Amino acid sequence: MTRSLTWLPYFLARLEVTVTVLLCVGGASAASVCSAKDVSRVRKLSDSPQHSYGREGFVHVTVAGAVLHGMTEVEVWLQTFAPSSQTPIHRHLCEEVFVVMKGNGTLLLASDSEKHYPGKPEQFAVVANSTFTIPMNAAHQVWNSHPEEDLQLLVIISRPPIKAFIYDDWFTPHTSARLKFPYFWDAECLKTDLNDTYTFDEL
Amino acid sequence: MTRSLTWLPYFLARLEVTVTVLLCVGGASAASVCSAKDVSRVRKLSDSPQHSYGREGFVHVTVAGAVLHGMTEVEVWLQTFAPSSQTPIHRHLCEEVFVVMKGNGTLLLASDSEKHYPGKPEQFAVVANSTFTIPMNAAHQVWNSHPEEDLQLLVIISRPPIKAFIYDDWFTPHTSARLKFPYFWDAECLKTDLNDTYTFDEL
Repeated sequence: MTRSLTWLPYFLARLEVTVTVLLCVGGASAASVCSAKDVSRVRKLSDSPQHSYGREGFVHVTVAGAVLHGMTEVEVWLQTFAPSSQTPIHRHLCEEVFVVMKGNGTLLLASDSEKHYPGKPEQFAVVANSTFTIPMNAAHQVWNSHPEEDLQLLVIISRPPIKAFIYDDWFTPHTSARLKFPYFWDAECLKTDLNDTYTFDEL
Repeated sequence: MTRSLTWLPYFLARLEVTVTVLLCVGGASAASVCSAKDVSRVRKLSDSPQHSYGREGFVHVTVAGAVLHGMTEVEVWLQTFAPSSQTPIHRHLCEEVFVVMKGNGTLLLASDSEKHYPGKPEQFAVVANSTFTIPMNAAHQVWNSHPEEDLQLLVIISRPPIKAFIYDDWFTPHTSARLKFPYFWDAECLKTDLNDTYTFDEL
């Protein structure tokens, strides 16, 4: 009996570890991620959740976000693109700053606001230790154009969480771009009826 | 006469180069930095102006800023602190995110808003590849606490250009903190009468 009682706390501790692992690995991970904002004062990026959101060759980390960490005015992401992977063609009514941490890529940017569709974009080479910004509501796309190396970007946006319109191609009319809100990395934890929250002018 | 005319464009081109070099190297650098916003689509960080603003062991680069680049909602800095160097003790009414690029440091944070002065701050160790945020209006200071290595931080703020209140020490009353606006890196190009632009509640 003494041996059994001695063993019980060890068993319970193992059980707790097992349940925690199952929660994190299994389909219930949303509960552990979304149940409370992570307001730790200092967070290691290596401990932050990483996801591809079904996009091949893409890894996203929310460094400081509205949904996960309670940010209200800025949001910061760390994103890695394998060779040939890219963002969708999209636009959003917020400021965006990119800082290229590693690799080489191409920014495609259609900033002519007079057309009814983005039109043929300008191309800009981007390299490690460079920075670029996107004008509000300009359709854009970022590619990893290097054949072998990853492209890693630190991305800063205003007005989080992001509300993005996605284009099938550069000649899709602006009015046919599809609103993606909540965006991929906010969808798990942000269940919002958009019509209750935002007017069209705010998007 | 023909030879003179042929030579003239070359002379003028040389003159232009000479004047440009003098403007960049000499005391008139403010004119070249401030006369027009740098709206280049992609900027190499190594080409960006670097300054210490009289703070020993400190180097600041404005990656994307309100004054230099026309940002209105977010601003991004790259700052390097030599061993033992630090920010002032200060607060500001904006969101702030730090991403530690290199080194080790200490965040001092006084987030008790009920006192009339910051009071003894909490201490947090920060390391490379970690991130931390500062609550709005919380007095804080970041130190490079490593004896030998630089601390390099990417810093993101909302509501640029920054309007900071600086404390002599942690027991300086909030009402005695000194407003520094324009801040060090904005002062050269931003000549603003604060009273015309901001109300006290906006600071």
